[in-house]
Amino acid sequence: MASVKDISVSAVINLISALVFLLAFAIARLQPINDRVYFPKWYLKGIRASPRSSGSYVNKFVNLDFTTYIRFLNWMPAALKMPEQELISHAGLDSAVYIRMYLLGLKIFVPITLLSFAVLVPVNWTCGETLHHIEDLTFSNIDKLSISNVPSGSKRLWAHVVMAYVYTLWTLYILYKEYKKISTMRLDFLASEKRRPDQFTVLVRNVPPDPDESVSKHVEHFFRVNHSDHYLTQQVVYNANKLAKLVEKKKSYHNWLTYYQTKNERNPEKKQKIKTGFWGLWGKSVDAIDYYTTEIEKLTKEEAEEREKVKSEPNAIVSAAFVSFNSRWGAAVCAQTQQSRNSTIWLTEWAPEPRDVYWDNLSIPYIQLSLRRLLMAVALFFLTFFFMIPIGFVQAFASIDGIRKVLPFLKPLIDMDFVKSFVQGFLPGIVLKIFLILLPMILMIMSKIEGFTSISSLDRRSAAKYHLFVIVNVFFGSIITGAAFEQLDRFLHQSPTEIPKTIGVTLPMKATFFITFIMVDGWAGIAAEILRLVPLIMFHIKNTFLVKTERDREEAMDPGSLNFSVSEPRLQLYFLLGLVYSVVTPILLPFIIIFFAFSYMVFRHQIINVYDQKYESGASFWPDVNRRILIGLVISHLLLIGLLSTKEASQSTPLLIVLTVLTMWFHKFCKGRFESVFVRFPLQDAVVKDTVERTTEPNFNLKEYLQDAYLHPVLKGVDFEVSKEINDEGKNSLVATKRTCRRSSKTVSNGTSEDQKTVSEIQLVF
Amino acid sequence: MASVKDISVSAVINLISALVFLLAFAIARLQPINDRVYFPKWYLKGIRASPRSSGSYVNKFVNLDFTTYIRFLNWMPAALKMPEQELISHAGLDSAVYIRMYLLGLKIFVPITLLSFAVLVPVNWTCGETLHHIEDLTFSNIDKLSISNVPSGSKRLWAHVVMAYVYTLWTLYILYKEYKKISTMRLDFLASEKRRPDQFTVLVRNVPPDPDESVSKHVEHFFRVNHSDHYLTQQVVYNANKLAKLVEKKKSYHNWLTYYQTKNERNPEKKQKIKTGFWGLWGKSVDAIDYYTTEIEKLTKEEAEEREKVKSEPNAIVSAAFVSFNSRWGAAVCAQTQQSRNSTIWLTEWAPEPRDVYWDNLSIPYIQLSLRRLLMAVALFFLTFFFMIPIGFVQAFASIDGIRKVLPFLKPLIDMDFVKSFVQGFLPGIVLKIFLILLPMILMIMSKIEGFTSISSLDRRSAAKYHLFVIVNVFFGSIITGAAFEQLDRFLHQSPTEIPKTIGVTLPMKATFFITFIMVDGWAGIAAEILRLVPLIMFHIKNTFLVKTERDREEAMDPGSLNFSVSEPRLQLYFLLGLVYSVVTPILLPFIIIFFAFSYMVFRHQIINVYDQKYESGASFWPDVNRRILIGLVISHLLLIGLLSTKEASQSTPLLIVLTVLTMWFHKFCKGRFESVFVRFPLQDAVVKDTVERTTEPNFNLKEYLQDAYLHPVLKGVDFEVSKEINDEGKNSLVATKRTCRRSSKTVSNGTSEDQKTVSEIQLVF
Repeated sequence: MASVKDISVSAVINLISALVFLLAFAIARLQPINDRVYFPKWYLKGIRASPRSSGSYVNKFVNLDFTTYIRFLNWMPAALKMPEQELISHAGLDSAVYIRMYLLGLKIFVPITLLSFAVLVPVNWTCGETLHHIEDLTFSNIDKLSISNVPSGSKRLWAHVVMAYVYTLWTLYILYKEYKKISTMRLDFLASEKRRPDQFTVLVRNVPPDPDESVSKHVEHFFRVNHSDHYLTQQVVYNANKLAKLVEKKKSYHNWLTYYQTKNERNPEKKQKIKTGFWGLWGKSVDAIDYYTTEIEKLTKEEAEEREKVKSEPNAIVSAAFVSFNSRWGAAVCAQTQQSRNSTIWLTEWAPEPRDVYWDNLSIPYIQLSLRRLLMAVALFFLTFFFMIPIGFVQAFASIDGIRKVLPFLKPLIDMDFVKSFVQGFLPGIVLKIFLILLPMILMIMSKIEGFTSISSLDRRSAAKYHLFVIVNVFFGSIITGAAFEQLDRFLHQSPTEIPKTIGVTLPMKATFFITFIMVDGWAGIAAEILRLVPLIMFHIKNTFLVKTERDREEAMDPGSLNFSVSEPRLQLYFLLGLVYSVVTPILLPFIIIFFAFSYMVFRHQIINVYDQKYESGASFWPDVNRRILIGLVISHLLLIGLLSTKEASQSTPLLIVLTVLTMWFHKFCKGRFESVFVRFPLQDAVVKDTVERTTEPNFNLKEYLQDAYLHPVLKGVDFEVSKEINDEGKNSLVATKRTCRRSSKTVSNGTSEDQKTVSEIQLVF
Repeated sequence: MASVKDISVSAVINLISALVFLLAFAIARLQPINDRVYFPKWYLKGIRASPRSSGSYVNKFVNLDFTTYIRFLNWMPAALKMPEQELISHAGLDSAVYIRMYLLGLKIFVPITLLSFAVLVPVNWTCGETLHHIEDLTFSNIDKLSISNVPSGSKRLWAHVVMAYVYTLWTLYILYKEYKKISTMRLDFLASEKRRPDQFTVLVRNVPPDPDESVSKHVEHFFRVNHSDHYLTQQVVYNANKLAKLVEKKKSYHNWLTYYQTKNERNPEKKQKIKTGFWGLWGKSVDAIDYYTTEIEKLTKEEAEEREKVKSEPNAIVSAAFVSFNSRWGAAVCAQTQQSRNSTIWLTEWAPEPRDVYWDNLSIPYIQLSLRRLLMAVALFFLTFFFMIPIGFVQAFASIDGIRKVLPFLKPLIDMDFVKSFVQGFLPGIVLKIFLILLPMILMIMSKIEGFTSISSLDRRSAAKYHLFVIVNVFFGSIITGAAFEQLDRFLHQSPTEIPKTIGVTLPMKATFFITFIMVDGWAGIAAEILRLVPLIMFHIKNTFLVKTERDREEAMDPGSLNFSVSEPRLQLYFLLGLVYSVVTPILLPFIIIFFAFSYMVFRHQIINVYDQKYESGASFWPDVNRRILIGLVISHLLLIGLLSTKEASQSTPLLIVLTVLTMWFHKFCKGRFESVFVRFPLQDAVVKDTVERTTEPNFNLKEYLQDAYLHPVLKGVDFEVSKEINDEGKNSLVATKRTCRRSSKTVSNGTSEDQKTVSEIQLVF
């Protein structure tokens, strides 16, 4: 086991690498040429102008004002300055609540750390002098601060039990306060929002087929009868998935065309050739510009046909619709009630905001949905516990012998010493790493198969899956050696009381590993996040080859967004580690606190200056966050029970079980107390907003406002010119929210580019 | 282990005792004097007149027409004759669906039995000739028909796995069909019902206190604002629990007064004395009639005071109210939506029908409710697993030594041989039996503490608790020896794969025990049920001492009702046994089929002729029934996995796990597909009923109709005379449903008795 000195060395190394990242960031962000990489949010908001337009030529690219370099860390206080209310209106509630998670970590762990260092560290330290003398060689300094230093059966273990109580109660108290605060924030956010289409709209799925009527008529009749005083209008859903793919393909061809045109301009002598086969590797060689021009023409024609088809053919309409009501009250009522006696048809739910809709999943029948969830649950189980089997298979194939056997012609190559050592040393690790990088995508695909209808819910479901994976494979996988399926097998053959013991015993020994993990993954990882290396490189590549107009440059920006489905479960690991080790090895806690504080600052900076969220769900992920922290708390109790029972203090087990039951009850209590705020819309609030609006704008034409709000984005900008016209006529400004309003008007002012992307992007934002 | 012969003997004994019960019933029911015990339902319906009024004096008491005795079993076809639709309108949907459970048992198990005898019995029988020769002495005949006869690792075990698949799929298919059928029955029942107050009413709990307004005004304002177009009226809830107790006490004193008056009339010389102390055992001896007359006078005064207090004092109003709407649509909407942003106040739910309301629980604050559920969950855990500890303690006290020590003056008594053997032999068993008799009451009290607001939900919750108790203590308790807490301890120290093995191995050996159990508890128990020995005796006692008028006689009838909270979990045990043993020991199945068929007949007879349900919940217990049968199915799979893995056929485990997962998924699917029918009221149906009613009765005064529907029953009949007046004026007939209408008009025609009971009973029925 590592000593304090080892840890210190590791800490210094990681601190230095973090500092290097920070320094690189501090310098890079001051260069005007990178301005769009580090401040895209402000560009999108239309507040920041391109710095290139002023100053000398060199000044456009490099910052030569050396005084600015002196204050290279001044982004930190700047990031902390913006008050929360402004942050919410600047970046949305999702982002504001997201960074509160880091704050929550600080609120929970700072007092716990102080208490631990005041109580548990002295208790552990002053213990077991004898042990220390005997096993001087194997005993590390870290262990002297942990529960390992307390001899079995010692009365001092009661201090740990008491502290477990204090920590749990404190955590529950903070969680309760936070849940309360965030549910108020959400309700205030919803109440303060301007009029939005989704406030009046309900998503109706599984519309039963009717032989005599079209879907559109059927939906209208149904809701006119059953919500007679409140029904306003409806929008059927077109199956435009194929069309969307065509549009996407055309856009990509457009990009390639621009790329080759740019190359051609710079070097007009050389003809640009490409091969038409698979990935441009095989096939006939043709002139690139000609090829893409004809391809785009073909696609344009195809697209027009498909567009016509979608609009005219009745079976292009799927069995779902967006039904709008004349008041928020009407929509809230329809979303919360059951419509038909068959509870698998006419399913209503509150519509996601238009840009949050996941269009592909709107028309899945109930039984199929139910089967898909079953299949994905089974798949998730196997993915979580047995993913090492295919990985191991690939790794075996990716070994020297495997390559020799399957690809004999590579034999001379891999027999070279350098290649050999690379293959042997790195390839298996790289295979695993590739899998882990692909994992969030796999999980997202699984969530999509499960049939959720909004991007926000897809994110939440993926996060749930990833959380399971992280707990099983990262947390337990690090504590117990062996692959997950081996653990599973072992656990199936051990008694329920034996399992926590097995893990509890190894727990203190793994503290140093997790400390190193926190420094590498946490500290250095977050510092890398702020540098944005990939977007930085991508921007400059695009800037060189694709950017012709100011609009193209705007497109080349990749502000990115908070990737909730990945970052939240990872963050949960830190909560779990903190809760588990708070009693066992308190020395781990300061490392977690630094992680939380540093991340808080970095992400606050990022959401202010960089990220552009794809949707706004109003912090509807909070119930998940709360639940997962409680899961961490329960795991910490169970492991502590196991640990203490190996230390001949099993009389504490009932006391700790009380704590576990209390935590579970707290979860149930919180669920009943707060969760409905995140899934339902209280009628009282709906009535207040309706009344205010009716008084202030008695003549507002709601029907016109809602008319095209829920049209598939591809169908909206029927064609480029038309879309521009609409923008010019200001028709759509009725639909647009504050931000999109700005963006669309900006688009118009930017003039006459013919690229499809911006329009579809803007429409996506609707 | 018992042989087929032993079982046959036991079967004959039990059949004979069942026949004796049936014969006694057949004779007793033909005696006119018992007519009110065996046909109370018809009296309550007002269809059957007292047989005493015609014929000679003797004929009034004893049936001398011997021809009727010949057809002494003709109640059986009579019970089966009534078509289901008529049954529903005669006895209500709850009863009709209840007996369908027995029918469901037949539907599931008859084909399974046939298949088992066609496939599994031959497979088992022709197996293991060698085994038979070796262990001839220990091997019973029953075992030759069970899976025990198949040697370990035999290929024949695949037959059992295949059969497990067939049986499971068949059970799921039947369950699906039944769930579908019953949800349709429920919806048709609700749709066909006449106007009822609960269709328009929502129970609002946790009304927040308001310093400026009374609860009544506050509720009215809130719903006038938030359901402006639909709110009609509201009825606050008075805390009349104390008053109800006074009324109850007065009624009991009245009975005693009548008793002593009757005695006095028959024997005017002897003065009736009673002692005023505890249970009439101690205290001053006074004249009974005088005593009760003055006590009743006192109580009447007290009651009047309390009544005034409840009506005038503002804090006699609890924070709950029944809010009524002008349409079913409005009520359905309010019941299904969230009203306030704080989801712990203004809780709305569909109001139970007036006679189903459990008045004591209407005003429990949310946090207290949540805590009560936690405490009761913990209490249930201890009750289920550790109930033997206090029982053992009492049993130890109830032993010879215990009595000698604590009550030394009884020493000469208990040293007598007869007493001694009684104490030693029976007392411990009696202590346990008393506990088991008290158990349903204890569970009901626990459910009441949990704070449910309707009697039907209390019944359902008690049933859930009892089901747990039965599974743990009867089913597993019989298979594994040792008290439940010992089992629990053992299971905690065994691996999850070991537990099913332990149980699976002992499973076939316990088959004979369960066959005997089915015969004693099932066959003979059901036969005893139809004889109604306790109500028979009670009726004759009451008839002798309390009955003066025809009305008194009506009261003396105790029709009883289906005790869902006890009988359903017991019935589930038979489903569990059938499912578990269908593959293991098929010989058990015919016994279960006889039980189901016989019970079906008996209960059909009982609900037609005897039982008078206290409430009508519209079969809302069905989701529970479905879930519990599926729990039985999952238990059967797990035990089969354990059994097969001890038979060296553990390669079948994954196949059976697939079956378990499928069953769990089926449960989820059914829940999504059907459950909402049992908890929510679809708007479509509400609109249809509203529209029909508005067209047929456009001028109906709904407000007047609903005015007093949800008044506490004690407050309704303000005083005796007043209540009678109301009946005379026919005011209440507006409120009354079909049945109560008849009853109340009958009450009026019965004239001028002054007893409180009937009125409060009628009001309870409202």
